[in-house]
Amino acid sequence: MKAKLERIPPAVITAADYARLAAEHIPEPIRAYIDGGSGDERTLAANTAAFARRPLMNRVLRDLAAGSTATRVLDTPLAHPIMLAPVAHHGLVHGDAECATAAGAAAADALMVVSTLASRTLEEIAAAGDGTQWFQLYWQDSRAGTLALAERAARAGYGALVFTADAPVAHVPERAVRAGFALPPELSPANLASTPAPRRALEPGASVVFQGFMGDAPRWDDVAWLAARSPLPVLLKGVLHADDAVRAIDAGLAGVIVSNHGGRTLDGLPASLDCLAAVRAAVGATATVLLDGGIRRGSDVVIALALGADAVLVGRPQLHGLAVAGALGVAHVVRLIREELELAMALAGCATIADIDAQALFTPAPGEVPRTVC
Amino acid sequence: MKAKLERIPPAVITAADYARLAAEHIPEPIRAYIDGGSGDERTLAANTAAFARRPLMNRVLRDLAAGSTATRVLDTPLAHPIMLAPVAHHGLVHGDAECATAAGAAAADALMVVSTLASRTLEEIAAAGDGTQWFQLYWQDSRAGTLALAERAARAGYGALVFTADAPVAHVPERAVRAGFALPPELSPANLASTPAPRRALEPGASVVFQGFMGDAPRWDDVAWLAARSPLPVLLKGVLHADDAVRAIDAGLAGVIVSNHGGRTLDGLPASLDCLAAVRAAVGATATVLLDGGIRRGSDVVIALALGADAVLVGRPQLHGLAVAGALGVAHVVRLIREELELAMALAGCATIADIDAQALFTPAPGEVPRTVC
Amino acid sequence: MKAKLERIPPAVITAADYARLAAEHIPEPIRAYIDGGSGDERTLAANTAAFARRPLMNRVLRDLAAGSTATRVLDTPLAHPIMLAPVAHHGLVHGDAECATAAGAAAADALMVVSTLASRTLEEIAAAGDGTQWFQLYWQDSRAGTLALAERAARAGYGALVFTADAPVAHVPERAVRAGFALPPELSPANLASTPAPRRALEPGASVVFQGFMGDAPRWDDVAWLAARSPLPVLLKGVLHADDAVRAIDAGLAGVIVSNHGGRTLDGLPASLDCLAAVRAAVGATATVLLDGGIRRGSDVVIALALGADAVLVGRPQLHGLAVAGALGVAHVVRLIREELELAMALAGCATIADIDAQALFTPAPGEVPRTVC
Amino acid sequence: MKAKLERIPPAVITAADYARLAAEHIPEPIRAYIDGGSGDERTLAANTAAFARRPLMNRVLRDLAAGSTATRVLDTPLAHPIMLAPVAHHGLVHGDAECATAAGAAAADALMVVSTLASRTLEEIAAAGDGTQWFQLYWQDSRAGTLALAERAARAGYGALVFTADAPVAHVPERAVRAGFALPPELSPANLASTPAPRRALEPGASVVFQGFMGDAPRWDDVAWLAARSPLPVLLKGVLHADDAVRAIDAGLAGVIVSNHGGRTLDGLPASLDCLAAVRAAVGATATVLLDGGIRRGSDVVIALALGADAVLVGRPQLHGLAVAGALGVAHVVRLIREELELAMALAGCATIADIDAQALFTPAPGEVPRTVC
Repeated sequence: MKAKLERIPPAVITAADYARLAAEHIPEPIRAYIDGGSGDERTLAANTAAFARRPLMNRVLRDLAAGSTATRVLDTPLAHPIMLAPVAHHGLVHGDAECATAAGAAAADALMVVSTLASRTLEEIAAAGDGTQWFQLYWQDSRAGTLALAERAARAGYGALVFTADAPVAHVPERAVRAGFALPPELSPANLASTPAPRRALEPGASVVFQGFMGDAPRWDDVAWLAARSPLPVLLKGVLHADDAVRAIDAGLAGVIVSNHGGRTLDGLPASLDCLAAVRAAVGATATVLLDGGIRRGSDVVIALALGADAVLVGRPQLHGLAVAGALGVAHVVRLIREELELAMALAGCATIADIDAQALFTPAPGEVPRTVC
Repeated sequence: MKAKLERIPPAVITAADYARLAAEHIPEPIRAYIDGGSGDERTLAANTAAFARRPLMNRVLRDLAAGSTATRVLDTPLAHPIMLAPVAHHGLVHGDAECATAAGAAAADALMVVSTLASRTLEEIAAAGDGTQWFQLYWQDSRAGTLALAERAARAGYGALVFTADAPVAHVPERAVRAGFALPPELSPANLASTPAPRRALEPGASVVFQGFMGDAPRWDDVAWLAARSPLPVLLKGVLHADDAVRAIDAGLAGVIVSNHGGRTLDGLPASLDCLAAVRAAVGATATVLLDGGIRRGSDVVIALALGADAVLVGRPQLHGLAVAGALGVAHVVRLIREELELAMALAGCATIADIDAQALFTPAPGEVPRTVC
Repeated sequence: MKAKLERIPPAVITAADYARLAAEHIPEPIRAYIDGGSGDERTLAANTAAFARRPLMNRVLRDLAAGSTATRVLDTPLAHPIMLAPVAHHGLVHGDAECATAAGAAAADALMVVSTLASRTLEEIAAAGDGTQWFQLYWQDSRAGTLALAERAARAGYGALVFTADAPVAHVPERAVRAGFALPPELSPANLASTPAPRRALEPGASVVFQGFMGDAPRWDDVAWLAARSPLPVLLKGVLHADDAVRAIDAGLAGVIVSNHGGRTLDGLPASLDCLAAVRAAVGATATVLLDGGIRRGSDVVIALALGADAVLVGRPQLHGLAVAGALGVAHVVRLIREELELAMALAGCATIADIDAQALFTPAPGEVPRTVC
Repeated sequence: MKAKLERIPPAVITAADYARLAAEHIPEPIRAYIDGGSGDERTLAANTAAFARRPLMNRVLRDLAAGSTATRVLDTPLAHPIMLAPVAHHGLVHGDAECATAAGAAAADALMVVSTLASRTLEEIAAAGDGTQWFQLYWQDSRAGTLALAERAARAGYGALVFTADAPVAHVPERAVRAGFALPPELSPANLASTPAPRRALEPGASVVFQGFMGDAPRWDDVAWLAARSPLPVLLKGVLHADDAVRAIDAGLAGVIVSNHGGRTLDGLPASLDCLAAVRAAVGATATVLLDGGIRRGSDVVIALALGADAVLVGRPQLHGLAVAGALGVAHVVRLIREELELAMALAGCATIADIDAQALFTPAPGEVPRTVC
């Protein structure tokens, strides 16, 4: 494996370059784990392909001299709407793990969402960042355990919670299984109890999925209970169906993250982008709606915002940057996407984030198929 | 050729792995015969591709602790809706032929449909199974001959008959012809009379197809006659058109199997999945409708059930499992698909088979194309 | 180059096999000339691809014992609706040229349309056939010259004329130009005057296309004049637009051949199949409408007839058969397509050619895309 | 690198042949700069692919003996509607740069649009041409500077100005960056002041895009000011949105060029062709509308004119011709496209440029997808 870069080579000009370079800096089984998706990886492919089917539209000669990517999400001012999605186990690709990521995020003015399954404690990661961090929360077997973790995140200075609802069952991409991936024991999640609660024994004939995992999984009333007691606003991540989004808002959540878990849970789900407009239409203009899945370019950000997102989360590219060049790489990945966002906004005639609406997309003539690729 | 495996290698995690491995365990002409389809194999390809065009939808935070794949078909309780489709000549890939398959099916709680063209007698196969078996019936030149075979199946303990209507003409895939495939003489169907009835001589200028094969083929009144006298309920297999499905029900049949014979008869037919919803709509909610063709994943089962099937039949994968690891392989193939089905149900928010309806599929916005692949 | 085969190898089971084998029997420049299309060969590809987008539908258990492919076109009884399209210069691939083709056509009960640009005289070709032949007519610089050729064809026993309207400019596929193709001098068309009329000199600045070729090209009144005086019924070949088809009937022609000249004139035209239904709808049920372009399988014939054709013409495959195995190859190509047609009719539940209508095609649910291929 | 050809090899029969040959005559970084597009080159690919989705329609037996490609644009009589698009830095591929191009354009009767970023002075280029030239104008930091350049072009004999609105930010294709492309210093634009105005310093935190490039970019009132004072009619290039086209006409411009800058600015824009019909519909029949992007064949010209363009501009192919064979190559590229245009018009039944309307395109049946390619 190559050592981390300390300077960015001049040919690294897009996030995709980091994806390519990462192959030289990560052992193959780990790369398969990070880059893979579930099943036949249809949803994984759909996530990125969906953007290619949504052409942008240019507008010319507008006054953009006061242009800016600044925005606010959950009342937090942000330099730009590009967040780092919660991703487990940064220690797989970097010795400083999420602490390096946090430093890179701070350097690039990016809000970072720290995973429950981080390789460092949430307090360590908070200390490495700049204070603009949220904490992603998995269900901790009980309401009390989950609330305790939420309160701990609040104490550490996190600004919001992201409750992940779409992964009640652990999942390793098939290509990672075939490549022999296994989580190294020293990378066990730093934020979880050292001795996990023993799984309840299943009766004969019982299903590991239904009576096992789903028996322990949280439900709507658990999430409502948490939202009512949480010291921080809670977003629900993993929502695709508009009805689930509405139910989340009705349950007292602060918003939703439209996501299919990066194509890592149920293969066959649509691209998260393809679910976004219906969710926004269902929850109305004021609820917070974020989009996760397939963001690789600044133009993708414009498309997501045009379809209703307030901001977007970037998953795998942050790990590629981290693997290649540490905090520097993370910051560079974000900066590349931000610069592309500025260019895309300028060429689409949008001076501000609020200016980005459905008008930024090309509307084909009736009966015609909108696409930039065959 | 490699010997049958006695343990499942850890990298075998999907039915597709068996399809790949089968190449090492079956001579090429036999594999071409099993895996091939008619003509240019458009229908063969369509059968699997159709599932990729039907995205699923996830639902979150539902209570699935009582979830189960149990269901009933023709009043038979089943642990899950994954059946083994009737496939001819299991002796091509395993010395114990259908007896090994039956043992594997029993181990995986799968209903097995035994082919008229089995390499073992139906009584032997019944003895090797667990009693949950149906018998597939080809027309036996006459009403009396056909009824006799049906009655023999009933005596042997089979629970229903599957009458195949869509293959009045024998068909070998072109790739099998090119590979030199021929049925070894020792594999002649064990259930048919040792001396087949001589074909009637054709007049000069007569068509082998029309005056030959179709002259001997069964018709609607034959099938109605059989259904009226059969000791077992009869399903009609090979129906794609809704009008044919309705006519089958009107003729006294217990239901239909929507199928294009695995893409092995008329190339150019649509995917069987693409015909399913219209058939279900035509016959109503109570008739039994099964789907055969292209099932490779548990998510495919959800899609088929969401479009109206009561259960599905799996064809080629059972032979791949049988070829690679015998009864163990058959059982493993079914178990893999069943486990994927449980996961897919859990992520789609469906606790029971009855919960799987059109809501489990993604409905794109009007004017948009539903797809997970480009 | 390999010599012509005298027996058909067992692996030759479709027309496509002849296309492949032809490469061994024809020098590359000639093969490029035969197989190529104009421009980027989009229309060439569209012609065959169009069939893949029109799924057939099966029907089961019908009485087809009296089935037959027999039909009538222009009051001529035909054993089947598979005709040989007019193709120039058979001498490029066989020493006996169109005489061998005619013998093969006769052996396969196929109506042959002989090209004006045949390598043998129309009288020789008529003598080699069985009397079921039509003659394709190019404009001969003048009404009188054209009528003279028509009358000569009538005297030789041809049953109808096919006037080609869509190729006023000679065209050689770009791949043939690149391969160095040139018509050998000894293959100059046998039916044309030995000394062609000198081209009129163009004025400076005049266009070779407009003032040259199109200045000499026939027009609607010429064709009407010919139809009124022709001793034989005249079909107009090369029609795609429904308005042109109607005008042809109004001009006294006996029918039209929907064709884009096998993708050899204007690249960018739609598949001829995609124009067929509109032409049939425009001219009504009684006018003769034939389809030329992309027929490679018996199932293609069913699709074309289902969309309104009375019969179809097969172009390149006849030359492939001729190149590989002479008259035997021509007959075999036709027989293979005819046998596939019988099978397709049987599986689609059509006993007669008249039974083939739009019901033989799969109609997808509203909003769905009909296709057998992705 | 190969020397320029002095004769055209016989296998060079389409513009695409020059694209291929150019690889032998241009160093790879320069070819990447010329042939590349921005981002993932989706828009670049869309520009050419869009033509394949618009099938033409043939019409037969019409009287085209008086046919001609002659037309008028901005009251200038043109032998044909194929113009040379403004392209920067011809010196990259030829020692005589735009002077050679101008000679080739004159030989092929093609109107040439000279770029502000030409490697030769506009006066030199005018002297090398035949008087049928327009001048493309980039904003020159101020109204006065821009008007001065416009007046200089008028004095040199240019007939119109093309103001480029869609590239306020300089852009080099990513593949060119990766190939190490840099503009050689001796190729600095010959028409710009020798010492460029210093960029204003940005405040800390300011955006290079918004406060930098866009702070200096022209706006609608600047363009209206220019149009009011320009000695020449002004066309606006880089318009895709119909509202921008209408605004341009309202601002006093003579017309618009529908263009996405050859896929070199915002990747993700639709094909310019896909925006054309809406622009024409919005500005009405009399405004001048040109189409730039993806023209490679004469049939493409017919498609563009059928969708509303008065004429088309050809970009990269002129550089390919220039690189391969200098002025001769430029002239040959234009002549090839013109000859294809004549053929396409003849086969589509269009005698004149004015005859080319929507009827020249194939209209599929309702519910069907128009396409010549899969």
